[in-house]
Amino acid sequence: MKATRICIIGGGSRLWAIQFFKDLSYNTMTHGTLVLYDIDKAAARRNVDVADRVFAVNESAGRFIVSAEDDLGKALEGCDLVIISIEPGRTDCRYGDLVLPEEYGILESVGDTTGPGGMMRARRAIPLFVDFAQAIATYCPDAWVINYTNPMTLCTAALFEGFPKIKALGCCHEVFHTEDFLAELVGKWFDVPKPDRRDIHVDITGVNHFTFVTKAFWDGHDLMPRLRELADDPATYSDRTDVAKRRLGEEKWFDCDHLVALSLLRDFGALGAAGDRHLAEFVPWYLASDEQLWRFGVVRTPYEWRIRQAKEKHDKVFADEELKATLSDEEGVDIMRSLMGDRTLFTNINRPNEGQISFLPKGRIVESNGFISRDSIRPVVSSDPPLGIMNLIRRVSDVQKMTLDAVVSGDDDALFAAFLSDPLMNLSHDKASELFEKMLDASKLVY
Amino acid sequence: MKATRICIIGGGSRLWAIQFFKDLSYNTMTHGTLVLYDIDKAAARRNVDVADRVFAVNESAGRFIVSAEDDLGKALEGCDLVIISIEPGRTDCRYGDLVLPEEYGILESVGDTTGPGGMMRARRAIPLFVDFAQAIATYCPDAWVINYTNPMTLCTAALFEGFPKIKALGCCHEVFHTEDFLAELVGKWFDVPKPDRRDIHVDITGVNHFTFVTKAFWDGHDLMPRLRELADDPATYSDRTDVAKRRLGEEKWFDCDHLVALSLLRDFGALGAAGDRHLAEFVPWYLASDEQLWRFGVVRTPYEWRIRQAKEKHDKVFADEELKATLSDEEGVDIMRSLMGDRTLFTNINRPNEGQISFLPKGRIVESNGFISRDSIRPVVSSDPPLGIMNLIRRVSDVQKMTLDAVVSGDDDALFAAFLSDPLMNLSHDKASELFEKMLDASKLVY
Amino acid sequence: MKATRICIIGGGSRLWAIQFFKDLSYNTMTHGTLVLYDIDKAAARRNVDVADRVFAVNESAGRFIVSAEDDLGKALEGCDLVIISIEPGRTDCRYGDLVLPEEYGILESVGDTTGPGGMMRARRAIPLFVDFAQAIATYCPDAWVINYTNPMTLCTAALFEGFPKIKALGCCHEVFHTEDFLAELVGKWFDVPKPDRRDIHVDITGVNHFTFVTKAFWDGHDLMPRLRELADDPATYSDRTDVAKRRLGEEKWFDCDHLVALSLLRDFGALGAAGDRHLAEFVPWYLASDEQLWRFGVVRTPYEWRIRQAKEKHDKVFADEELKATLSDEEGVDIMRSLMGDRTLFTNINRPNEGQISFLPKGRIVESNGFISRDSIRPVVSSDPPLGIMNLIRRVSDVQKMTLDAVVSGDDDALFAAFLSDPLMNLSHDKASELFEKMLDASKLVY
Amino acid sequence: MKATRICIIGGGSRLWAIQFFKDLSYNTMTHGTLVLYDIDKAAARRNVDVADRVFAVNESAGRFIVSAEDDLGKALEGCDLVIISIEPGRTDCRYGDLVLPEEYGILESVGDTTGPGGMMRARRAIPLFVDFAQAIATYCPDAWVINYTNPMTLCTAALFEGFPKIKALGCCHEVFHTEDFLAELVGKWFDVPKPDRRDIHVDITGVNHFTFVTKAFWDGHDLMPRLRELADDPATYSDRTDVAKRRLGEEKWFDCDHLVALSLLRDFGALGAAGDRHLAEFVPWYLASDEQLWRFGVVRTPYEWRIRQAKEKHDKVFADEELKATLSDEEGVDIMRSLMGDRTLFTNINRPNEGQISFLPKGRIVESNGFISRDSIRPVVSSDPPLGIMNLIRRVSDVQKMTLDAVVSGDDDALFAAFLSDPLMNLSHDKASELFEKMLDASKLVY
Repeated sequence: MKATRICIIGGGSRLWAIQFFKDLSYNTMTHGTLVLYDIDKAAARRNVDVADRVFAVNESAGRFIVSAEDDLGKALEGCDLVIISIEPGRTDCRYGDLVLPEEYGILESVGDTTGPGGMMRARRAIPLFVDFAQAIATYCPDAWVINYTNPMTLCTAALFEGFPKIKALGCCHEVFHTEDFLAELVGKWFDVPKPDRRDIHVDITGVNHFTFVTKAFWDGHDLMPRLRELADDPATYSDRTDVAKRRLGEEKWFDCDHLVALSLLRDFGALGAAGDRHLAEFVPWYLASDEQLWRFGVVRTPYEWRIRQAKEKHDKVFADEELKATLSDEEGVDIMRSLMGDRTLFTNINRPNEGQISFLPKGRIVESNGFISRDSIRPVVSSDPPLGIMNLIRRVSDVQKMTLDAVVSGDDDALFAAFLSDPLMNLSHDKASELFEKMLDASKLVY
Repeated sequence: MKATRICIIGGGSRLWAIQFFKDLSYNTMTHGTLVLYDIDKAAARRNVDVADRVFAVNESAGRFIVSAEDDLGKALEGCDLVIISIEPGRTDCRYGDLVLPEEYGILESVGDTTGPGGMMRARRAIPLFVDFAQAIATYCPDAWVINYTNPMTLCTAALFEGFPKIKALGCCHEVFHTEDFLAELVGKWFDVPKPDRRDIHVDITGVNHFTFVTKAFWDGHDLMPRLRELADDPATYSDRTDVAKRRLGEEKWFDCDHLVALSLLRDFGALGAAGDRHLAEFVPWYLASDEQLWRFGVVRTPYEWRIRQAKEKHDKVFADEELKATLSDEEGVDIMRSLMGDRTLFTNINRPNEGQISFLPKGRIVESNGFISRDSIRPVVSSDPPLGIMNLIRRVSDVQKMTLDAVVSGDDDALFAAFLSDPLMNLSHDKASELFEKMLDASKLVY
Repeated sequence: MKATRICIIGGGSRLWAIQFFKDLSYNTMTHGTLVLYDIDKAAARRNVDVADRVFAVNESAGRFIVSAEDDLGKALEGCDLVIISIEPGRTDCRYGDLVLPEEYGILESVGDTTGPGGMMRARRAIPLFVDFAQAIATYCPDAWVINYTNPMTLCTAALFEGFPKIKALGCCHEVFHTEDFLAELVGKWFDVPKPDRRDIHVDITGVNHFTFVTKAFWDGHDLMPRLRELADDPATYSDRTDVAKRRLGEEKWFDCDHLVALSLLRDFGALGAAGDRHLAEFVPWYLASDEQLWRFGVVRTPYEWRIRQAKEKHDKVFADEELKATLSDEEGVDIMRSLMGDRTLFTNINRPNEGQISFLPKGRIVESNGFISRDSIRPVVSSDPPLGIMNLIRRVSDVQKMTLDAVVSGDDDALFAAFLSDPLMNLSHDKASELFEKMLDASKLVY
Repeated sequence: MKATRICIIGGGSRLWAIQFFKDLSYNTMTHGTLVLYDIDKAAARRNVDVADRVFAVNESAGRFIVSAEDDLGKALEGCDLVIISIEPGRTDCRYGDLVLPEEYGILESVGDTTGPGGMMRARRAIPLFVDFAQAIATYCPDAWVINYTNPMTLCTAALFEGFPKIKALGCCHEVFHTEDFLAELVGKWFDVPKPDRRDIHVDITGVNHFTFVTKAFWDGHDLMPRLRELADDPATYSDRTDVAKRRLGEEKWFDCDHLVALSLLRDFGALGAAGDRHLAEFVPWYLASDEQLWRFGVVRTPYEWRIRQAKEKHDKVFADEELKATLSDEEGVDIMRSLMGDRTLFTNINRPNEGQISFLPKGRIVESNGFISRDSIRPVVSSDPPLGIMNLIRRVSDVQKMTLDAVVSGDDDALFAAFLSDPLMNLSHDKASELFEKMLDASKLVY
């Protein structure tokens, strides 16, 4: 495999970047140069040491020359691959995203993709991504760009806004978790050891975090009839309030029983393909109250934990043991190897619609299957879901486009129309307007 | 003008049918045969006398031979024109439509077009309209059919479901009221006597009761800049709670200041073209509470008044004076004259989409301008509204299609998906399901 | 009716402009200012006198103040209406359009709309129309613009290319002739006096000169079954070679028996709605040879006659008698009256596709029905024709778009792709290339 | 790999079937049952022996149990895979397809896909394929079906007409040859040994035999700039008449220099991705004369050779040496292995359009890239080609749809409209009609 020059924007990150170092170590064919760029310059510099330690611990010292770079242009120059994983705005901006809506009775389980909180986060992120794209156009127009930042759809859309010919895709592991859930079911249904999630073949459609499985196969078996049976069985939905409360206590925000996903299959005809905490935010009837959400075993990630965790991550010192690489759930390195010609990959991708999703306009960032090979990402056509699902997705995608256009043109009045149109919006016009103004204020403190 | 054989389905009606007799009297060129059909056979028969009196009072005796007919086939046979204006289900079915949702916190201002109530009304009406269409296919396949019944869109759609080649249109006067409102503004803005609403030229788009004006002209003046100014002025939205309370006291449910219409223009870029009581039901943020609604001067029509009024209408004895014809706001007779070749008419129509609304699928019943002439109704292309408006309309139209398909196939599970997707739905899944079951029960008592 | 300021671009024309003066005279409600602009300044000036005489002869002296203006900007300034009817390039450019293709075996019956000749004419005209549009944008952006110049579709498209907000339409009388032909048939079929062509109601679709009637009514009678019978009757197509030869002798190039129109109905399911000489140029099988064309009674307008006629027109002195106005077949003044608010008009229009033709992309200039009223032109939705007709029209519209893009970007290689794709192209690649180069040369002498 | 039950319809074939036996032998993982069905029952039976010999010669005896079956239902029962490769109509039907048009001056280079000959072949084939599909619906509805028969698009379309849920695809090696041509160029351009054609990555779009490459990569190098340079160089098109004449003498009908493919790239902007003999039939300007065709090095396959070759094939006795298996150019067995779960395959497929080709209607059979895995074929989205290419393809696809509908409904008048619309049609209407009738007659002798 050829030497690859990689730039990580958000290279000071304590979580995502370090996982990526480990993935690079684990895949022994990769080698080249790694440049860390971060608005927190000290963090980037500190991560150079961490990266070197990761390669050393995993007996790969020398495979990558790692450095930090304060200037974005210099960091990007000559890159083959740019990876973007940032926090748009300081962590305390999340107060406005999460706590203010709650004060008005709008509950969000994640608040980084959709809902009032996701919209404000988009308002902070979009200008940054337009800038990144323009820098890429100048310094490495031929580089492949992988975005991991949420709101995924809008950050990726902003890249294409800033540089229409950018070779970018958005990457997300939520569909993998759904495949893993199906793998578990396969183990049970066919009395076999749980297969690898890569052996579950799904046909997906939607927008990131609001994606749906329309077809699923394992070893030639159509899984949809069994899934429908499961979804239609009232016993599936036995009350999980106890489970939820335990999860609250144990801070297991990400645990998921896929009951929201299944209830979408039961009601609308396609299986939700993201964690329940994400799916629940795109429709009004799961987040009516915490009690209702708990019945599905879902708990909301609290603002306080986010602040605490951010601090813990920042202060964390890694033991060697923690830097040992194993096969991870992230596909970033596999995508990189595929784009560099070392393998091929059939996976899920977030890319501008060229026809892969026939019920959305061209150009919208959509999530579908895709085939990745040497210098090429090709979207695979998604089967059409039932009309009820199309309706839910279309609405979300339209609101995303309204948000993008409003933020790019700096028009907060237009953004308010998107705000009103969000699926979680259940306030009176007066209250909606009041909340919007407060959230604009809280979101201003970008850095 | 040639003699016309007209059948009125719902011919026993005390309000609509009698207005139509008066309109026929007023337009002295019309003549022919009038057959009244009603499921309440006595009411139809009683209206024969009323009709005869109307023609006598207006010195038109003999222009129409009026009769009642108990058998639908016989009533339709040989007709040139069929008019349908019925109440789908007894008045007390409206209890389920209006009162049950209210108990769950879902307020409806009308409840006959959209919202949970409109959906249940559609569930009662659609099978009736499929039957009407099949009878028309058998007995008078070349007749023109005008539907006045709500939910307009779904009743008209059901006609095409029952007989795809039916020559039907849906007729509604809400857009006229918006034109009248614009005429009033013109009087004020240009310091001229208020012009006739027919001199206001509008370009409209949407679905019935959720229609929007994208362009408006009077005497060559573009009215949109002034309208936008009015919509953007905070003074426009001064609190109308007092007005609303007075309207409540005076039972003036239909009075309208068009503040909802204007606020949609301000927020989304196109003027709502229906009464505020209709517009408010298609989005969540006006009906959050009665107090909120009152601020816009809008009051909800109570169930009790509907029951009382139904009884009063039933018992009403008309004085001669009340049967005198004047120029009315309804266009039914003008449409009839146009279709019979006596004039032409540029108006608004509800017809299957053939391209007039470019952002909705073909076949959906949509409201646009139309040109009516001898045996011909031609839809006029609507200008595209801003994306935010498209999104709101698309959502409503999709839910209508989901409702139609669910009811035609008798699948209440599929109907529940539509129920969940309604813009007014803000309940938890459990509550939504509970309400749905109760409303199904209440809606069963069709006759 | 309000005073109207009109500019005629091509105001020196001896035929079209003088007919327009007569139409203005005939319609006694019109009044205002008339400015004649022409690249042949002397001709414009000479026509001022002719116009004054026309108004005098028709006892309308003073209704219009007529002047000539050498500067386009001054001519346009403050206009309400601009009319464009020009000859793009000197008459001898037509040599290249008509004679060169014939030398290569490509026969054209008109050669101003389609075929190699129409394409070269478009290449000369498009830059002029882009310039006109830009001048209109500067000097009278709110004026209505009526184009009469061929190639109609591409000249009108070039106006929108030059000024996207231009309020322009293309006007053509070919559909009127088809209505007149139907009126004649109605006279025969129903044994009534031939009705006025305005009493024939047609639903049309296509692009100018390649338009089709999908529905036709008279007095409530569906004319299509009878038309199909006529089209399917072999006797309809009895050999007209004798007629054609007589027409050749008498120089009756424009006489038409509508046999090409009918054979398109027979073969493809919709009636051609233009003269046979136009229709025949859009498909290969009528112009295979003069002999074949004559069988349909159609004769080709020779180049020599065009040259001779141009000279005769130029030298012509009009007798008073020739300046007397009568009701003409042109609708220009009716359109003007409608746009100025004096009446309404349901007619056929050439406008950018907004959805009126559902099988062509938005933005293409298409011919459909339209409704014209005060400051407003609204396209009416055309019914879809059978697939075979869609295919023929789509091909033509695509080639027009290829031509427009090639000429606007000045790319003759791209124009050659359009040239190869023209329906009349039956040459080998070598010969096609040779002919193209020769025609480019012959077309260069614009003025 | 699991045991596979395969039925070959056309199992008596001396060429295609025997190659398939060899491919099965070569891929040592395959095993199962092979049932040969042919309308020529003796031929099927004779091929059982040949198949057994193939497996024996290749030391695979016993891997497949081979039998012949006279009854189609029995042959299909329980199959996992059905392969169809037949000759629709006796070889002498090809007389009408090839010789009759030539008599009228319409030259065809192949005459089995498009042109008058391809259309008549479709008329014979479509009813057979509708029948096959219905039998498959009855006897093995879950089987995968691979069609190799020409006209590929229409035979595959007929399968979906007969059984809409059929799991069918059309397979063709023409794109492989284009990849091979690109591989040759890569060898030259990059001074490397000619790579395997599988290492050339292309993005294709179109309909079978009229497919285009819009993007091409090798080892991360974009090949399009070099291809365009080659296509734009006049030297590329040096006269190949000598080569063509030598090919005629040596009966090398299939040799190809890709000059037609390249000239399409030069003129229209995308590289033809089929042999020149195929491409040349879809546009009028290469087959204007044999002399013109020869300039591109292309020669037409004569009818006499087809007859002679059919006889030779029929009589052929295979030597052991001829039955030795090597890696072949056909992908049938790779597709089979992929569908059975033994590998995955990124290739080109002919399938109903679900969105992979955004400029054609859904449902049309189109050629695009596709990804094949266990029980799954997923179309990959094709990039849009330039408008000129879209126009050429759209026209061909429309004519195919017209042909399908006409043949399925048994309407030869409708078929004549398709006949007139074929790109090779350059006759007068009279001659076209005459030729059509003669070809109908010649095509009648199906068996």
